[in-house]
Amino acid sequence: MKNNMSLLDTLKWRYATKKFDPAKKVDQKLVDQIVEAAWLAPTSSGLQPFKVIEITNQELKEKIVPIAMDQHQVADSSHLLVFAAWDNYTEDRIDTIYQHTTTDREQAPDRYKGYVDRLKKTYLKRAESENFAHTARQAYIAFGFSIAMAAELKVDTTPMEGFDNAALDSLLHLEELGLKSVLMLPLGYRDEANDWLVNLKKVRHPKKDFLIEIK
Amino acid sequence: MKNNMSLLDTLKWRYATKKFDPAKKVDQKLVDQIVEAAWLAPTSSGLQPFKVIEITNQELKEKIVPIAMDQHQVADSSHLLVFAAWDNYTEDRIDTIYQHTTTDREQAPDRYKGYVDRLKKTYLKRAESENFAHTARQAYIAFGFSIAMAAELKVDTTPMEGFDNAALDSLLHLEELGLKSVLMLPLGYRDEANDWLVNLKKVRHPKKDFLIEIK
Repeated sequence: MKNNMSLLDTLKWRYATKKFDPAKKVDQKLVDQIVEAAWLAPTSSGLQPFKVIEITNQELKEKIVPIAMDQHQVADSSHLLVFAAWDNYTEDRIDTIYQHTTTDREQAPDRYKGYVDRLKKTYLKRAESENFAHTARQAYIAFGFSIAMAAELKVDTTPMEGFDNAALDSLLHLEELGLKSVLMLPLGYRDEANDWLVNLKKVRHPKKDFLIEIK
Repeated sequence: MKNNMSLLDTLKWRYATKKFDPAKKVDQKLVDQIVEAAWLAPTSSGLQPFKVIEITNQELKEKIVPIAMDQHQVADSSHLLVFAAWDNYTEDRIDTIYQHTTTDREQAPDRYKGYVDRLKKTYLKRAESENFAHTARQAYIAFGFSIAMAAELKVDTTPMEGFDNAALDSLLHLEELGLKSVLMLPLGYRDEANDWLVNLKKVRHPKKDFLIEIK
């Protein structure tokens, strides 16, 4: 399963795919690994305040295209991953993950009580918008993990942030789940002949402007 | 340089290191790759609105410990990476990266004019706080890439978000550079005998609660 490139080479190989070949489907075993990479990502205090929604339903993918600034990669993708973050921190959500943690680690139920109490003291008094800004940020680390994992598996992706979040939340009934959409990641295989970006050089700020060294 | 684990296995191997061995330094060639992974990360519209500050100065690392809730990993790390995002989008910053892009790709200087004009129309009317919330999010994807890259190289990391951003900005004179600190990533090698987390099971929400499939 492992390719012969170094991870750095796979990150250079990766690009934001502009045209997928809709006939080429990604093996579900590879998609599972891309989702698992997101699942493994670190999050603030281990709260893991987001979920991944994996969409293969073609009709639904097509409904999302106009919500995503008409980016047809959504419909042409093999699988569409939506990263959706908790709309807020709640006492129940914080308790749930720490109860699961102590069970899973076979620890006393009150093992993290002091820590959990401090988390609640911090988050539960904050405005919902401030907490959502924080949960949303956590999803970005996982998004990075999934993009890197996909590249390692030679699966193409288009990182997408520019879409009508409220419309997508409504279409996917996310409000009822206490979630808000943050990011989308269509997965598939590039249609090289019809992708204007595939052969253009990857451009970044010159390294001297990107890195500041303090020795 | 490439280890024999799959990327998924390296992401399982990774954990938030609680105790580094301060005597073990990370080879600069590995650090360069960890920084390069961040440099390669995708960003919204390719603006790459953040920088990485690489700190090896011991005195400075020690000054950052009290700013980082007394997390001694900052001082014990071999290298400390600070991810700092643009405090705002400006016309000059947007022009700079697109001028660099057309030069680097040997394209006409006005190749992306329509696109760049739309970006300016969107960002330049927004509040600075809203733009910074957006630039900061971009740094998280790169943060994910660096964490994954470090794990691939068997370098330990501690993802850090909880610190006094304003104090760090002041200490590093980031305001003068138009930057605000967002994340820190100490790099080093675990002190296994003195790290309380290293042998505890990695816990996440059960996969059935993490993944929603729509077929």
